[in-house]
Amino acid sequence: MSESLAAFTNAASSVNASAAAHVQTLVTHADDLGIEVDVLDSGVTVIDAGIDVRGSVEAGLIVARICMGGLGKVSLASRAEHGWSSWLEVSSSQPVLACLASQYAGWSLSATKEEGGGRKFFALGSGPARALACKEPLFGELGYRDAPGPSAIVLEVDRRPPPIIIEKLLRDCGLAPKQLTIILTPTTSLAGTTQVVARVLEVALHKAHVLGFPLDLIVEGNASAPLPPPSRDGVEAMGRTNDAILYGGRVHLTVGADDAAARDLARQLPSLNSRDYGRSFAEVFKAVEYDFYKIDGALFAPAEVWVSSLESGRTWHAGRLDMNLLGALWLAEG
Amino acid sequence: MSESLAAFTNAASSVNASAAAHVQTLVTHADDLGIEVDVLDSGVTVIDAGIDVRGSVEAGLIVARICMGGLGKVSLASRAEHGWSSWLEVSSSQPVLACLASQYAGWSLSATKEEGGGRKFFALGSGPARALACKEPLFGELGYRDAPGPSAIVLEVDRRPPPIIIEKLLRDCGLAPKQLTIILTPTTSLAGTTQVVARVLEVALHKAHVLGFPLDLIVEGNASAPLPPPSRDGVEAMGRTNDAILYGGRVHLTVGADDAAARDLARQLPSLNSRDYGRSFAEVFKAVEYDFYKIDGALFAPAEVWVSSLESGRTWHAGRLDMNLLGALWLAEG
Amino acid sequence: MSESLAAFTNAASSVNASAAAHVQTLVTHADDLGIEVDVLDSGVTVIDAGIDVRGSVEAGLIVARICMGGLGKVSLASRAEHGWSSWLEVSSSQPVLACLASQYAGWSLSATKEEGGGRKFFALGSGPARALACKEPLFGELGYRDAPGPSAIVLEVDRRPPPIIIEKLLRDCGLAPKQLTIILTPTTSLAGTTQVVARVLEVALHKAHVLGFPLDLIVEGNASAPLPPPSRDGVEAMGRTNDAILYGGRVHLTVGADDAAARDLARQLPSLNSRDYGRSFAEVFKAVEYDFYKIDGALFAPAEVWVSSLESGRTWHAGRLDMNLLGALWLAEG
Repeated sequence: MSESLAAFTNAASSVNASAAAHVQTLVTHADDLGIEVDVLDSGVTVIDAGIDVRGSVEAGLIVARICMGGLGKVSLASRAEHGWSSWLEVSSSQPVLACLASQYAGWSLSATKEEGGGRKFFALGSGPARALACKEPLFGELGYRDAPGPSAIVLEVDRRPPPIIIEKLLRDCGLAPKQLTIILTPTTSLAGTTQVVARVLEVALHKAHVLGFPLDLIVEGNASAPLPPPSRDGVEAMGRTNDAILYGGRVHLTVGADDAAARDLARQLPSLNSRDYGRSFAEVFKAVEYDFYKIDGALFAPAEVWVSSLESGRTWHAGRLDMNLLGALWLAEG
Repeated sequence: MSESLAAFTNAASSVNASAAAHVQTLVTHADDLGIEVDVLDSGVTVIDAGIDVRGSVEAGLIVARICMGGLGKVSLASRAEHGWSSWLEVSSSQPVLACLASQYAGWSLSATKEEGGGRKFFALGSGPARALACKEPLFGELGYRDAPGPSAIVLEVDRRPPPIIIEKLLRDCGLAPKQLTIILTPTTSLAGTTQVVARVLEVALHKAHVLGFPLDLIVEGNASAPLPPPSRDGVEAMGRTNDAILYGGRVHLTVGADDAAARDLARQLPSLNSRDYGRSFAEVFKAVEYDFYKIDGALFAPAEVWVSSLESGRTWHAGRLDMNLLGALWLAEG
Repeated sequence: MSESLAAFTNAASSVNASAAAHVQTLVTHADDLGIEVDVLDSGVTVIDAGIDVRGSVEAGLIVARICMGGLGKVSLASRAEHGWSSWLEVSSSQPVLACLASQYAGWSLSATKEEGGGRKFFALGSGPARALACKEPLFGELGYRDAPGPSAIVLEVDRRPPPIIIEKLLRDCGLAPKQLTIILTPTTSLAGTTQVVARVLEVALHKAHVLGFPLDLIVEGNASAPLPPPSRDGVEAMGRTNDAILYGGRVHLTVGADDAAARDLARQLPSLNSRDYGRSFAEVFKAVEYDFYKIDGALFAPAEVWVSSLESGRTWHAGRLDMNLLGALWLAEG
């Protein structure tokens, strides 16, 4: 293995250019996908994937591919395991770019009540547009900025963003209105639930980052998680997408690190390291009186992990699924 | 979730337009797929996928995508479960259009001995052409009729249809000869067996319809079934494709219905509700002296089901695979 | 089933033409795939997929599709089985052409120390270019020679081939320099390990050939194997790709043969028929003092097989995975 192993970002990879074909798929097949495409007077395209329309799991899979900047595979599998039959599979050979430079919902977008037309607006933007604006400190660590061009951002919201947010997106990304597509996916929708559960690999990368593991050493990711139906209740919807990952998520990372680093990452990564492990996300969230930042950060992790060292070729396995917990939450007594 | 949830059909979705690329794949890769493409003098295209040629599983997967009007995913997986290693996976975010408006083999096409050139002809047509002709009462319930354009029909037969059948297809569908492709897949062929087992999701939708469940409330479907090799014997071939679904089929439906309706559907859907459950289809068929209509309709169902309610977010699970029965039928003693 | 069942090769199928789109994918997405594309002065394209660059699992999947002459499906699945989470799935409806006329690493390419610029060169070429040169006796048995056109060869080496090897490739294949792409994948790389494990179906076909089973009767193949990370040590890297197949490989073949022939093939095919079964490949290799040809040929086989007879419709199942052995080799104590 050459020294270039550590060169995790490739300046020539463009998360925006790679996502563009998937954005086009959403537009071309909007009717089949149950979504609605509006082109605003300004030229900005807004895709409603679950607010005033039903949307679909298939739309959610495509949104997930857009979120990953076109550098990940996302698919729905049908196989029964521990009493559940619908599973998402996610993989990437550019996991840092796909998950952290693009998919991570890290761009805070807010408008005051006045700016928002009588109602406050808040969203965490995800997707390739983040890599144009590079507003988050994370981008300094990644050393990645994408070249300007047609772009897309995904907002997990239940209403359209006010004009001031759209203007901010255009300005920060350096885009002409015709170049921007905004995709709206409430967590309570089919597409919304799907694209959040598809973050199973991203959750592992984010926690590895929190643990201080050098991102430039993470070179491959392969993951799965069970896909539940959405809940109509916002908190419960958020809860079950998190639970799918925390108790049903599996992630295999391959890292250009030595045995000790790979072993430590494997030991520390799984959700069972959290003091809150064993309770549903909704229960934990309620217990902290809905103050997201009081939740133990260690909880946000896949249930079961494998970490392979490229230095030694060895693999560490840690954590385990708790499908009984998910079954108790998701399955009704017959 | 908005009220549009109940609007299950999308007038702008075209099962014929969406299937067209898959028909083109069959034609372009005919040699690799082991099939034969004939353009008749009239301009009608006839594809032999298993009568005078060997055909293939891959051809069957493509035919299944055509049957589903391009609105379903169909793939072959390799994983061992209960001693069987080849499984089909089928999903759709437009399950009613894909399965009932297109895939269901519901268009009765028959010719007398005289009309058939000395031999009676009978076939049940399936695929997107059905949604142009709309000859079945089902289309009144679906409220769907596709716009005219290039189309395809799949016939599960072991000989080419006589001219009078082709004329009827053109007339009823309102097609010019050049617009029609007829695909022939005997159940005794590799492609035929594959495309029938790929009906696992359709079988669930059909039974839901028989049970009186409102079709407009079925919004997602995800399914799998084991793929056996074909039998050279017609009755046995039909038997094993049915057995693959009745004893090895799994279906997860998502419905825009309340708990009671979702629970009842889950309870009533699986094949184990039938008095004939537990015997192979061929044995049941023989016991009713090959009178298809004497078989208990409740038997035509997947073995195991999950039904998720979009109203409550809860999921009901019922039925179970009987891979021992399939193993006894399909596996020879070593 | 018609007599054409036995006509296993289709003169009109071109492994080179079918692979071309995958070669183009490597070139177009080189940056995302972590590979490097050089066009030599002569016009020959050389792709480094793991020597001076990191490469990727995704690049390995594409190389595997090229190896199979575009006539096979190769994908990465994420599902846990016996403690391992990353699996390759491989299938083909033209298994003899895909695996033996193209994927098999059977073309011996060597240069002396002088010819090699001070260092001996040896590689076993695989991929569709083999079917242009047809230098191996196997092609006589296959009765297949592809038509000239743009072509690719895959070399499992850790350095670039010397000019004399490139000249030999062009001459033997009858290609202009611009028509040839040479893909380099060391076994110690991510892409190299991936494309070797993706030979799980080919290994079954090769052993069937060694056992004297008529190749023209093998009509379908569907297979899987666990994907390990590469080892940096050449022997260990070769060992673990072999172990993945010998102890973790599953293959389902469908054959146009009678019960006795299908049963015998199933019994004789699995690796457990070898006297060396139960020890890691690296251990076996060491025991024969690294003389590859002293290894019992019966060992090169998948662990578990299913053979379906198209004559009778029956399936034989034999062998079994030994994931405990692989776990002991691949997993480190936590």
